[in-house]
Amino acid sequence: MTILVADVGGTNTRVGLAGAGPVDRSRISRYRNAEFASLGDVLAVYLADHLLPPPEKVCVAVAGPVRHGIGRLTNRDWIVSQEELCRVTGAATGLVLNDLSAQGHALDLVATAPVLERYGTLAADPEETRLVIGVGTGFNAAPVYRQPQGLMVTPSECGHVTLPVWNEDGARLAAELRRHHGFASVEDLLSGRGFPLCYQLLTGSAPADPAQILLRAAEAPGGPESRFLQLMVGTLGRVAGDLALVHLPFGGIVFIGGMARALQPFFAALGFDEGLRDKGRFSDFLAQIPVSAMQDDFAALDGCALYARQGAATR
Amino acid sequence: MTILVADVGGTNTRVGLAGAGPVDRSRISRYRNAEFASLGDVLAVYLADHLLPPPEKVCVAVAGPVRHGIGRLTNRDWIVSQEELCRVTGAATGLVLNDLSAQGHALDLVATAPVLERYGTLAADPEETRLVIGVGTGFNAAPVYRQPQGLMVTPSECGHVTLPVWNEDGARLAAELRRHHGFASVEDLLSGRGFPLCYQLLTGSAPADPAQILLRAAEAPGGPESRFLQLMVGTLGRVAGDLALVHLPFGGIVFIGGMARALQPFFAALGFDEGLRDKGRFSDFLAQIPVSAMQDDFAALDGCALYARQGAATR
Repeated sequence: MTILVADVGGTNTRVGLAGAGPVDRSRISRYRNAEFASLGDVLAVYLADHLLPPPEKVCVAVAGPVRHGIGRLTNRDWIVSQEELCRVTGAATGLVLNDLSAQGHALDLVATAPVLERYGTLAADPEETRLVIGVGTGFNAAPVYRQPQGLMVTPSECGHVTLPVWNEDGARLAAELRRHHGFASVEDLLSGRGFPLCYQLLTGSAPADPAQILLRAAEAPGGPESRFLQLMVGTLGRVAGDLALVHLPFGGIVFIGGMARALQPFFAALGFDEGLRDKGRFSDFLAQIPVSAMQDDFAALDGCALYARQGAATR
Repeated sequence: MTILVADVGGTNTRVGLAGAGPVDRSRISRYRNAEFASLGDVLAVYLADHLLPPPEKVCVAVAGPVRHGIGRLTNRDWIVSQEELCRVTGAATGLVLNDLSAQGHALDLVATAPVLERYGTLAADPEETRLVIGVGTGFNAAPVYRQPQGLMVTPSECGHVTLPVWNEDGARLAAELRRHHGFASVEDLLSGRGFPLCYQLLTGSAPADPAQILLRAAEAPGGPESRFLQLMVGTLGRVAGDLALVHLPFGGIVFIGGMARALQPFFAALGFDEGLRDKGRFSDFLAQIPVSAMQDDFAALDGCALYARQGAATR
């Protein structure tokens, strides 16, 4: 079987091809969405560039909500439907899933590495429920369940839940965010999209480049950038703890996404683990959970391939 | 097939018998746990009282966490295992599940009624994901998924997540709770177990009887009891909204439990719906979700029967 797979982000689309195993790394191409009118055009160009016949299946991960086989990109006005995928590629089966779901489906295929010194007192049993937390342009998280017919990853919009408040900086920020756009959500602080505004609101400074904030926090511990990152990292720990109590991921928490990767070097010094375990009598419960990060940038493509092979029996 | 079913709460245990349909209401018995050393003793007495032979299956719902077929009651030192259930009753198959899971499995069998005037702009499609929120002695919630092999209800401990703070009363209460036991959780405020202490902490009044607080709130709108209930009802709306963003229950939210039932008469006057929709740009999204309450006190028993018939293929 040949499966055409694609990972459609807000800015770029990666396209690849899979057979019975992982996606062939040597045939992955990357396209800038701004240069195309639709995802269909991207896929057509890929098939033409690689001189490929119509695949049997096509499976696409999109950075946005998916319902009834139709995906809507959050940061671009593209709509992706199963019908269009089949029509454009000539495939018999077209599948659309959320990009976080795709990463969840890839969990059995790609390597992860611990991001806490303590890691967790439980072994990371892949038969147990796992939780993928994506912190990139936006924030989202999804539980991954082992079911008789394969992995099941349930959709979520949990980046938009109430921002937890646990200290004075956080209370001040939440009040500012409510004044600014009526509500203070997790994603407002914990995302590449959101955190520069929070930095401005909290420090009163001029608009700052996200990369500069991270660089200065690393260079000057105790400075305003570092203090701000302490709020981000401590909140991320508490949000991960809340989500762990919701989903009970005895198989472990796995971080993905560029913002998560950028924050990990600060986890130990700025209190991620303390945040995770700040749950009163449930502190020991949280200390069990292994916490790691996904190492592979192409995991969503592998997840698409696995999902297409597994069939549409699960989500 | 005969299935012995039981719903084990902190104080009482209800026991019944089911065949191919719902549990026979005329043969449900209720026992006070304090009069028994173990659940096994309760079940043995039921079988003797009703002159019953060993059932083919026994399925028990417990108010506490269940892992690997072993349930632990949160408010009593009983441990319930599949092995013990079989040994005591003579059944070939023993099953243990969390009581909220049992209620979730009952959703297709028992009646629900709307608790919002608006109800929700979507029809409550039982093929879609539903969310059961239990507010009783404690707080918990679980999503109910339709899967090929039957309903799937995933376990949770979400009553112990961070209490959302959205106004000054709430901020003051959260600070008091943190001082009092190191952390402020949803269950600390939104449960029969928790709310009397919150009332004391917030109003500075002497310990009050929970029923008295509810009665005075109904009799004297604008009084301190009513203002306190406004915090409870508004927070319940926001917590329901957060859980809806986590689980995306397009099939509806269903409330169960005594505290939920006690608060429902106050939903319209004290801002439940405003709380549910207080999500900034996701307000319209939340307004779609139908919100209802379960009408049947014996739903958990029906859920046990369905779960036992369905087999252990799902959670």
